[in-house]
Amino acid sequence: MSSSAHDIEEGLAFTPKFDADGLITAVATDAKSGDVLMVAHMNDEALRKTIASGEAWYYSRSRKALWKKGETSGHVQRVLELRVDCDQDALWLKVEQQGPGACHTGRRSCFYRAVPLGKAGSTTLEFRDADKAFDPGKVYK
Amino acid sequence: MSSSAHDIEEGLAFTPKFDADGLITAVATDAKSGDVLMVAHMNDEALRKTIASGEAWYYSRSRKALWKKGETSGHVQRVLELRVDCDQDALWLKVEQQGPGACHTGRRSCFYRAVPLGKAGSTTLEFRDADKAFDPGKVYK
Repeated sequence: MSSSAHDIEEGLAFTPKFDADGLITAVATDAKSGDVLMVAHMNDEALRKTIASGEAWYYSRSRKALWKKGETSGHVQRVLELRVDCDQDALWLKVEQQGPGACHTGRRSCFYRAVPLGKAGSTTLEFRDADKAFDPGKVYK
Repeated sequence: MSSSAHDIEEGLAFTPKFDADGLITAVATDAKSGDVLMVAHMNDEALRKTIASGEAWYYSRSRKALWKKGETSGHVQRVLELRVDCDQDALWLKVEQQGPGACHTGRRSCFYRAVPLGKAGSTTLEFRDADKAFDPGKVYK
């Protein structure tokens, strides 16, 4: 029998709830600005490596592989704090982003486009903080 | 044929990528503090209602139902900005949280426990900002 909802929400036992694919959602924010840098996933191994090393590891669903953030680019994420949410199915990493950016497109954050509000049916995005912080062609081979 | 990766990442067409269950991950942060308040999901209808109204709507996987955040508690989230990430499979809402908190346990944020770092194998969480901001027993019937 799994833990009760009360134990999961109010207890101090860390019992991360991985989904059917063995993954848990992880949100990385810039510890200074509070900006969301990226939303990714961790499997059990990525989570263990993150906790042990204090640097962010993720699991890529597209590449089906464990990866250390910054392994290729050098843009490592130093984890200042790792938190878990009430039902223990999401993680929040407050990170110190090394290098110019977190996004593989060259931006500091993956969230460089806004969806206009109040316009039902509008499907045109607007760039926000979308200047490239680095040249992905040079950073990734 | 779906849009190319380049179109999805660099274009201005909003083409949110819902998962096999028709959901997309949505992260709500406090627009002032930058703290992550909650990680939830939206289906197409929740996303449309959020865009049209400027207030956050989600889809509850456990209750299998659309819900307006704050419908019962009054703790509505006014969306100041909605952003989409590079591959358009995650949303970031910068919100003005109405009322004392976002979490159904009574805290301001759902992320009120930290996972200690550097201790391989440790499974004991630590409370952080875990004081109750409201009494859930009084707010939810």
